[in-house]
Amino acid sequence: MITALLTDFGHEDPYVGIMKGVLLSRAPEARIVDLSHGVAPQDVRSAALQLWAAVPYFPEGTLFLCVVDPGVGSKRAVLWARGRRHQYLAADNGLLTLAARRDSFREVRAVTNRSLWLPCVSRTFHGRDLFAPTAGALLAGLPPSELGPRRRGFRRLRWPKARRRSQKIRGEIVAVDRFGNAVTNIPSKGLKLGTVFKAGGAEAKLMPCYSAARPGAALAVAGSYGFVELSVREGSFAARTGVRAGEAVHAG
Amino acid sequence: MITALLTDFGHEDPYVGIMKGVLLSRAPEARIVDLSHGVAPQDVRSAALQLWAAVPYFPEGTLFLCVVDPGVGSKRAVLWARGRRHQYLAADNGLLTLAARRDSFREVRAVTNRSLWLPCVSRTFHGRDLFAPTAGALLAGLPPSELGPRRRGFRRLRWPKARRRSQKIRGEIVAVDRFGNAVTNIPSKGLKLGTVFKAGGAEAKLMPCYSAARPGAALAVAGSYGFVELSVREGSFAARTGVRAGEAVHAG
Amino acid sequence: MITALLTDFGHEDPYVGIMKGVLLSRAPEARIVDLSHGVAPQDVRSAALQLWAAVPYFPEGTLFLCVVDPGVGSKRAVLWARGRRHQYLAADNGLLTLAARRDSFREVRAVTNRSLWLPCVSRTFHGRDLFAPTAGALLAGLPPSELGPRRRGFRRLRWPKARRRSQKIRGEIVAVDRFGNAVTNIPSKGLKLGTVFKAGGAEAKLMPCYSAARPGAALAVAGSYGFVELSVREGSFAARTGVRAGEAVHAG
Repeated sequence: MITALLTDFGHEDPYVGIMKGVLLSRAPEARIVDLSHGVAPQDVRSAALQLWAAVPYFPEGTLFLCVVDPGVGSKRAVLWARGRRHQYLAADNGLLTLAARRDSFREVRAVTNRSLWLPCVSRTFHGRDLFAPTAGALLAGLPPSELGPRRRGFRRLRWPKARRRSQKIRGEIVAVDRFGNAVTNIPSKGLKLGTVFKAGGAEAKLMPCYSAARPGAALAVAGSYGFVELSVREGSFAARTGVRAGEAVHAG
Repeated sequence: MITALLTDFGHEDPYVGIMKGVLLSRAPEARIVDLSHGVAPQDVRSAALQLWAAVPYFPEGTLFLCVVDPGVGSKRAVLWARGRRHQYLAADNGLLTLAARRDSFREVRAVTNRSLWLPCVSRTFHGRDLFAPTAGALLAGLPPSELGPRRRGFRRLRWPKARRRSQKIRGEIVAVDRFGNAVTNIPSKGLKLGTVFKAGGAEAKLMPCYSAARPGAALAVAGSYGFVELSVREGSFAARTGVRAGEAVHAG
Repeated sequence: MITALLTDFGHEDPYVGIMKGVLLSRAPEARIVDLSHGVAPQDVRSAALQLWAAVPYFPEGTLFLCVVDPGVGSKRAVLWARGRRHQYLAADNGLLTLAARRDSFREVRAVTNRSLWLPCVSRTFHGRDLFAPTAGALLAGLPPSELGPRRRGFRRLRWPKARRRSQKIRGEIVAVDRFGNAVTNIPSKGLKLGTVFKAGGAEAKLMPCYSAARPGAALAVAGSYGFVELSVREGSFAARTGVRAGEAVHAG
């Protein structure tokens, strides 16, 4: 079983390494993969999107251990969930919103079994003190029923849906990646090449791939998330326009 | 046996990957965990703190391979040490100061056995040419006595200790993390909620967890290192105040 | 067999993690090592250099999976190559130029067998849809002959060669690393200590190691790539001088 880690811990600090130390202390054979630690601090929406993007591509039965948790130390619940393909551990803050859709969750539990946690639980680092040892217990064979009681609901983010009426499309930017590509919430399926998208004062025509544009020119492409992305060939759409997550995109 | 890597090599360059290549060449079954490569260049103090933080959380018998080594290529010694729980390899520059306290070192050796090193040893990258192959030899079963002669002492950093006299506390900031939390050297044990800390012109009241403060407000919390940390809820204490490691913190 | 990943995907996004998910879906026992994901976006030259630097240090038989691919989604070919020591997968954009010299390539194939790819291939993320599943098939035992037809040539970068005439040396900077060291293309072998290099308006004398210079002073050293590097002791040569890859360096 693979354990995939998704956090906003970054790479400057020892936090991710320490979580792995705890996990391996409890489950010496754990196979750990870093999904990403580059989620912006406390950015639950980005984490939800990154997790959503990963769901179809990991081996069935992966345990996604997700720690983007601005409410750490408060009374927010911690959840375990089982979908059609995978398992998940995350705080009940909406992080699982999109994964729940893509992996049709079948069982959700509140993680309340303190006997699994580290003896001293800090109020700031539940990744180390609660999430990692709980994951370790699961990997070592603990039946999920021992994690805590079943839950029916859990918190969901309001996720913006793109609107399309005849030729007009209105959506928004949901993420900006390292390359300065602006990922929108507009599904790329069925869109005609040549459709012109507008965002941040720039126009970007839908093209089959980056190399179809001149170097330095803006373009739109059917991106790897399944949504339209706005890019600059050999450049950065975000740097050129200053757009950020939450800004409007439209076409037609 | 886990090998945990701690370096200041960052993630832009191939240096960490190449060290792993050498390690796996010598010990094909090595299980490597990145503790952190985000130590600021040549910041031995930060490395000492990160290592200290990791000691209790890694499986017993972990080999910590630590390469933060401004003296690389000079005559500084390289040390191997065995504590109560773990083993360590590091240059003799103080990096092991805090780990030695937390893991009560029992045996220290100078790593002088050149037959273990790569045939060509550069003057700038001992992580690759000396540390990794030496670690690989240990992982492959070499008795530590063959690394080199025993040593009694080793270099220790002067580590600032917080002072407390009746209600007055004086400490300093020892690290700033990705979230802009300022980690102090003031042990949080026994402190009363409501205690007010001052640093960088700001005041921060000790609260049970981040969510006890209003969004955007400064607070102090009992942090995961075991020390008081100064934070801003959903923000960055360091960005707001400009504080850095070495600056004073006081209360009372 | 080790799979070493080299990309320009960085660490902010889930792209590297998702590639690993695909790889592990196809080859559950894969042992994956990150060579580097810090290549600057679309910087094929840096990737070529990083790969070159890694060749001698990875266990024989390593599969280097290299995705720095500005032409993704266009008709550029994807190559598999076998050298004396290792195997490689990369787009045909010059990335393999230096590895081919160092590992004397014996067999090159165009990767055209679409049955190995994911069922839906995006136009922007061949790392996930083409490279990772192809690598997975190789790791799972696919004979390379099934990847696609043999190729004779492949694209090579023009790589600048340093010139030396009696005492005069003219080279250029080929990379700047995290520490601000400027890596040149001037082989350090046979150079005399004391030789003075000039670049970016600064002078740097060849010294045996960093500690031979005063803190804050510029120096040149025989770097770990095998070339002269320009550094500042406990500082950054690049930050001080503003030099970048492509700028001239001379001596004599």
